[in-house]
This record gives sequence, structure tokens and C-alpha cells, in this order.
Amino acid sequence: MSLHLIIGDKRYSSWSLRPWLALVLTGEAFTDQVIRLNQADTTRLILEHSPTGKVPALKCEHGTIVDSLAICEYLAERFPKAGLWPADVAARAQARSACAQMHSGFVGLRSRLPMDLRQDEALEVIAVEAQADIDRMIALWRECRAVSGVKEGFLFGTPGIVDAFFAPVAVRFRTYRVALPADAAAYVETIYQWPAFKRWQQAGLEEG
Amino acid sequence: MSLHLIIGDKRYSSWSLRPWLALVLTGEAFTDQVIRLNQADTTRLILEHSPTGKVPALKCEHGTIVDSLAICEYLAERFPKAGLWPADVAARAQARSACAQMHSGFVGLRSRLPMDLRQDEALEVIAVEAQADIDRMIALWRECRAVSGVKEGFLFGTPGIVDAFFAPVAVRFRTYRVALPADAAAYVETIYQWPAFKRWQQAGLEEG
Repeated sequence: MSLHLIIGDKRYSSWSLRPWLALVLTGEAFTDQVIRLNQADTTRLILEHSPTGKVPALKCEHGTIVDSLAICEYLAERFPKAGLWPADVAARAQARSACAQMHSGFVGLRSRLPMDLRQDEALEVIAVEAQADIDRMIALWRECRAVSGVKEGFLFGTPGIVDAFFAPVAVRFRTYRVALPADAAAYVETIYQWPAFKRWQQAGLEEG
Repeated sequence: MSLHLIIGDKRYSSWSLRPWLALVLTGEAFTDQVIRLNQADTTRLILEHSPTGKVPALKCEHGTIVDSLAICEYLAERFPKAGLWPADVAARAQARSACAQMHSGFVGLRSRLPMDLRQDEALEVIAVEAQADIDRMIALWRECRAVSGVKEGFLFGTPGIVDAFFAPVAVRFRTYRVALPADAAAYVETIYQWPAFKRWQQAGLEEG
């Protein structure tokens, strides 16, 4: 059984980072293949793998699975021992809710503070809709901790899909030097100390 | 065990329609509560139930679950006999992918052709980004059928979350009189003949 993930530049592709981290958490061997974004032939190259024209896409024994959240759900089912979702029903529902909210929303944050691992400067002005998203994100992380009862470190104790989904947010908060309350800042640091994230970060910083 | 769904106007709330249909598919008794959208007190009323300020939200024995996709995943786990996702692994991955794509994308379709059950007129002009979404939707439905092998009716044979997710799209296609190829038009008709959808539609048309 092979697992091959088609992704965008590690420096920029927040959507790709998520299933990549989930793949690492499975403990399975996998390969990845970077398609450079924003090039003249980017869409053509992606369409060779995925009809959506978007990354990420996972090639596996069950075909090609597109969409970051769908890939993560597939991995959670396929490798149940990895505990990609919390074991408790209510905690799992909250973790899925947090990921689904991230998947469909936070457009202000995503558009105004795009992920760039080399970014290292505060924005001069934070747009109103981006600040609203930042405030909501801090609240959402607290809602997760309220359900899990886990006061520090990963939101539900051990790293999972939910932390993979918020890793790109941690990058944005860190690299744009967003002012954060202590609990949110500590969670960002948890992501930055996560060995799987460090591997991606290192690779992204070395990209040409 | 009670299941209580907080939703927006049935006439307008495409996000609410999805988990409502999934709830019907479980065969369980449930109640719903409409919060009128776009009123002065809408956000305040929703915030009494959900910290997102958005509908839908499900109140159940495991707490309040917000986000349409997270609610559907919860129901699929909680009521496995209802078969809300396809039983086959590859089919289930494709169904989840289709829903996740709907959840995060198709912004052109969602913004330019908002769901309104009483709409009954073609748009004078279909914006480029909306037409691209329409074309992609037709392709996505075909991708689902290619994986499921089901040539007509519901995309994976029996109705499930994936059909619930596309029901609001069927409404848009029908009520804005979007020109469709035969296979897509037939799927829209499948949704319109779905008894659960008819119940919602009837209630939506009767709203003040």
C-alpha cells in the first residue's frame, strides 16, 4: 500500500500542510510531491492529479482523494490506532466542528494573513474582518479546551487532525506577530515545538 | 436522548437544510427551531445557542455541535445503521470529498445564486465565477457516479449526507432555471422527489 501526497509549496500551502501532518501522525511511510503554486503551468500540472485543480490530493489504494479534510477523515478511518480524532464522542464532535469551521470559514484571516513561512513582520494594519477572525480563533481554541479538559499543549491532549488544521493558523499568528493572550500564544508555541511541524517548516524554508 | 436542531429560515438557509435532511435519514425523532435570519436580533438569538453566531447547531446528549458538516459526521457515527455515508471505503472517501469541497468552496455559486425556495426566474447574466462553479458541480456529480457506479437517482444509491449537501445546489439550479445537461437535470429531479426534501420545501414555502 502506498501513500503519495500531492501538495503545493511547503512555504505557502496551508491546505497542504494539514493532511501532511496527519500523514506523519499515522506513522506510515509516505511520499510527497510538490507542485509549485502561482506558476504558468500550475493548474495544468495539478489537473493531471486532481479534477479540482487544487492541492492537496492523496493517491492511495482507494484511488485519489482530494480535499484536505476528506483526506484526514480517510486517514483517521484507515489508521484507527493513530488516534487522529479524540476517542471521546463529545470531544471528537468538537474537534470535527473546529476543523469544519476552519475549512469553511475564517476567510478574513486566510485572505489578509496568507501563510508564508518566511514572513517575519507585523502587518501595519489588521483589517477588521481579520481581527474578528483572530478573536474568534482564540475563542474556538478555548472551546476545544473546555470540552477536552486539556489546559495546555495540544488541544485534545495528543496531537491530531485538529492541531494539523490549526498549524497554518499558528504560522500566521507567529509570522505576522499577532498580539495574543497567553493561552493562545502558548498553543502557537506547542505547534512550533511539534517535531512533525518542524520538519515541514525546515523543508519550506529551504525551498527555492 | 433528544435531538434539537437550531436552523435559519427554511426558505433561505442552505446550511441548515443539510443536517436537517441527515437527521430525517437517521429515522430518529427530532425537533427544530427556526431563528429568522437578517433580523436585528438574529445574531444575538443565535449566540444564545452557538458561539459561532451561525446556524445550524445541534443540541444533543453530547452537547451543542455547531457546523453542518460536523453535525452530519456526528449523526453518521451515532446512527451507523442509517448508512449516512456509503459503506464502501473508496465510495465513502469520494462522498466525503464531495461534501468537503462543497463546504469550503463554490463561493461563486453560493454568493451569486443564493438559495431562496420562492425564486423562480433565471438570472439575466450568470457571472463567470458562478458558471465555473456550475460546470465544476456537474463534473463533481459525475465523479461521484464514476466511483459509486450508480448511474441515476441518488449519487451513491441510497440517500445520504452527500445528497443532503447537494440539495441546496439542486434548489439553486431549479429555481434560477440553470441550463443543465440531462444527467445533472435528472439528479436535480431526484432531489425534488425526495420526500424529506419535499417536507422542508413545503415548510419553507409556508414561512411568513
